[in-house]
Amino acid sequence: MLKGLKIEVCEANLELKKQELVIYSWGNVSGIDREKQIVAIKPSGVAYDELTPDKIVLVDMKGAVVEGGMRPSSDTATHLEIYRNFKNVGGVCHTHSTNATVWAQACKAIPCLGTTHADYFYGDIPVTEIMPDDYIEKDYELNTGRIIVETFAKIDPDQMPAVLVANHGPFTWGASPGKSVESAVVLEQIAEMALKVEILACSKEAISKTLLDKHYLRKHGKGAYYGQE
Amino acid sequence: MLKGLKIEVCEANLELKKQELVIYSWGNVSGIDREKQIVAIKPSGVAYDELTPDKIVLVDMKGAVVEGGMRPSSDTATHLEIYRNFKNVGGVCHTHSTNATVWAQACKAIPCLGTTHADYFYGDIPVTEIMPDDYIEKDYELNTGRIIVETFAKIDPDQMPAVLVANHGPFTWGASPGKSVESAVVLEQIAEMALKVEILACSKEAISKTLLDKHYLRKHGKGAYYGQE
Amino acid sequence: MLKGLKIEVCEANLELKKQELVIYSWGNVSGIDREKQIVAIKPSGVAYDELTPDKIVLVDMKGAVVEGGMRPSSDTATHLEIYRNFKNVGGVCHTHSTNATVWAQACKAIPCLGTTHADYFYGDIPVTEIMPDDYIEKDYELNTGRIIVETFAKIDPDQMPAVLVANHGPFTWGASPGKSVESAVVLEQIAEMALKVEILACSKEAISKTLLDKHYLRKHGKGAYYGQE
Amino acid sequence: MLKGLKIEVCEANLELKKQELVIYSWGNVSGIDREKQIVAIKPSGVAYDELTPDKIVLVDMKGAVVEGGMRPSSDTATHLEIYRNFKNVGGVCHTHSTNATVWAQACKAIPCLGTTHADYFYGDIPVTEIMPDDYIEKDYELNTGRIIVETFAKIDPDQMPAVLVANHGPFTWGASPGKSVESAVVLEQIAEMALKVEILACSKEAISKTLLDKHYLRKHGKGAYYGQE
Repeated sequence: MLKGLKIEVCEANLELKKQELVIYSWGNVSGIDREKQIVAIKPSGVAYDELTPDKIVLVDMKGAVVEGGMRPSSDTATHLEIYRNFKNVGGVCHTHSTNATVWAQACKAIPCLGTTHADYFYGDIPVTEIMPDDYIEKDYELNTGRIIVETFAKIDPDQMPAVLVANHGPFTWGASPGKSVESAVVLEQIAEMALKVEILACSKEAISKTLLDKHYLRKHGKGAYYGQE
Repeated sequence: MLKGLKIEVCEANLELKKQELVIYSWGNVSGIDREKQIVAIKPSGVAYDELTPDKIVLVDMKGAVVEGGMRPSSDTATHLEIYRNFKNVGGVCHTHSTNATVWAQACKAIPCLGTTHADYFYGDIPVTEIMPDDYIEKDYELNTGRIIVETFAKIDPDQMPAVLVANHGPFTWGASPGKSVESAVVLEQIAEMALKVEILACSKEAISKTLLDKHYLRKHGKGAYYGQE
Repeated sequence: MLKGLKIEVCEANLELKKQELVIYSWGNVSGIDREKQIVAIKPSGVAYDELTPDKIVLVDMKGAVVEGGMRPSSDTATHLEIYRNFKNVGGVCHTHSTNATVWAQACKAIPCLGTTHADYFYGDIPVTEIMPDDYIEKDYELNTGRIIVETFAKIDPDQMPAVLVANHGPFTWGASPGKSVESAVVLEQIAEMALKVEILACSKEAISKTLLDKHYLRKHGKGAYYGQE
Repeated sequence: MLKGLKIEVCEANLELKKQELVIYSWGNVSGIDREKQIVAIKPSGVAYDELTPDKIVLVDMKGAVVEGGMRPSSDTATHLEIYRNFKNVGGVCHTHSTNATVWAQACKAIPCLGTTHADYFYGDIPVTEIMPDDYIEKDYELNTGRIIVETFAKIDPDQMPAVLVANHGPFTWGASPGKSVESAVVLEQIAEMALKVEILACSKEAISKTLLDKHYLRKHGKGAYYGQE
């Protein structure tokens, strides 16, 4: 069932390891079949070199397992909340990649300091509020998804495929599981750059709106002219 | 004698190199057979690409060699003091891994700033007192073990499998030699993150007790629900 | 047509990946045939492991494609402006390499703090002015070239084969496409060093003119005595 | 002539590349035959993957080439000055390794902040004075050696096999060419650690004399008990 999606999700998870965003069994990527309303996700606590497509777990939109012999990622409820609220998302990725996690641990949004950032993300990478105790004590993973959705009240998730969960780490997404991993790789890269800009103690003002628009819009949307179409 | 343990200890030592926690012959891992009261440990000053199970040295709980043609690690007395006092420990690991050693050299505990930390360690990673001169001059390695044990007067070593020896570096442990290395790898990772959080000059307050409990306890103990059982 | 140049440009682009200056399809290198007034450049948005010499695009000095089935790099107009103004340049390279980009994002010139720098660059690596809005809104890539050329009003591009475009990243050049990449590799290295010197909070004064002259001139120009001629 | 020494020097140079202390043709290692008073050194500007033992150049103690078809390293006069003054040195190594060079560029000695440092170097890594103009203008490389020797007026080079040349980079040495490279590798490691300790903004006081003695002397000299004899 959904063999293609399971292969795609498996490969996206393996890409996490290859890109050195995770160690041990950390991190997880999922993908959704919007028509069938089924999400394919990494099983919990399985090492990457043992991960194969047949181990990918299928769950329905409430998190019930519909296929697979293993328990799904403990972060499944967060993924589902994202899929339920961000309608164009086809893949979700969670890592504890070093530099993005540093910003999350510092509870700071990553300012848009350059065009590398503007090429992918339309503004500062938002950070959630610090989670209140009652969000943590019950339905923690679901509430992690809720606080992400709350953070996007005035942000378009199609133009901002990343968030930092305060004291925790990044979640990213995209049109496919592979694209959600690409968002995670680029996020890690710009997080490192922005962190190092702090060492130079220069102004942390974001780049001008004009430059942000130029770079984001020359790669995305109707007037884009980067790439081969 | 104790062939299985020697293989396990050898592999755990080689993992140090593979994980890039050590260069040259730095670092050492040991394992214990609690029933026989014998500890298997890396020989002193042997390069990792020459290390084989038959070179692993067996010592009794007082440090006398019971098998092996080579001198045991010069840190053997520290390992033994840990085994004598922390009763559930099955493996001990010592490295000079870069970022953990930086915190040790700074004589600072690593604050628990995020859930990556909370997933493995139940609170701040403690640092020992600076060693007094008389601890250094005589029985230095044994006293390194003693100051570690003193640091844990009010800390449960089963929930905190790591310590920073001031001006020196980390010791970690676990249920097996392999697990003690995993503690060292994760410690290095969170040490890097916490160091970089300093660059962002944000508050160094630890995460809330509720979040710490949630993450540590969803992976450890009775109510754990991470992984495949 | 210009098969040798296309091979050279292709190899210089692949070197960007090998030297870890780029991820995905980021970055681009071009080369010029000064006699024929034709520039060979990487196609836009093509992944490095799919890049072959026959995919390299040939354009004239106004940017019109004269050979090749793909769209040229979106930065082509910047490359052309550099070739039109810096007459000895044979190759141009653009990356978002981490540490050089950090200085560009900080809108700071890289001070000449040591002989590693002086061996390649005759003084501080200049940074452009922040681009005014009207430069961004129309002919953005051409204007990126213009602001680079304006920055070199009093600097000799033969002795300073690098610039930081403010809020963006580095452009480098050299006698050939390969040499422009070498400039980018060394720039990234000295950018990392200069950034880390900031951590030591020491004086940011440049090295003495005498030492700068000694190191630059023992490797470059008439009296050079480094290498095998 | 001196075939064994040439092989040893060639391998020590290749080790620089393997340990990632150098890029391109940067860096150089030499070795001396004290009896014959001949020094074997890397040729100037030769890439490491083209380096073979027969390309190693032999020079006498005044720098005249006695064998070899290539020009010796432009730093040869510095190496010779070290050999003439530090009588037990069998090999000399020069790199621009990142973190050691950062300290050199900052014109700061590396304080002995931990036992990793104390295991190899008996105190702070000294930095030379900033070179006066007349030292630079004439006999620059010889004077680089002179200022190193002057820095060691009250330091024993056998216990301190490293120096930072201000605004330049490290020179290291040892009983053999290979040992001089080992000094360079460890120096780079402790330079990174000491740099990162600065981020933690903790006291920069060196470790106690007692701890320094303990660690240096348990690995070196008569009472040493590390390793297998």
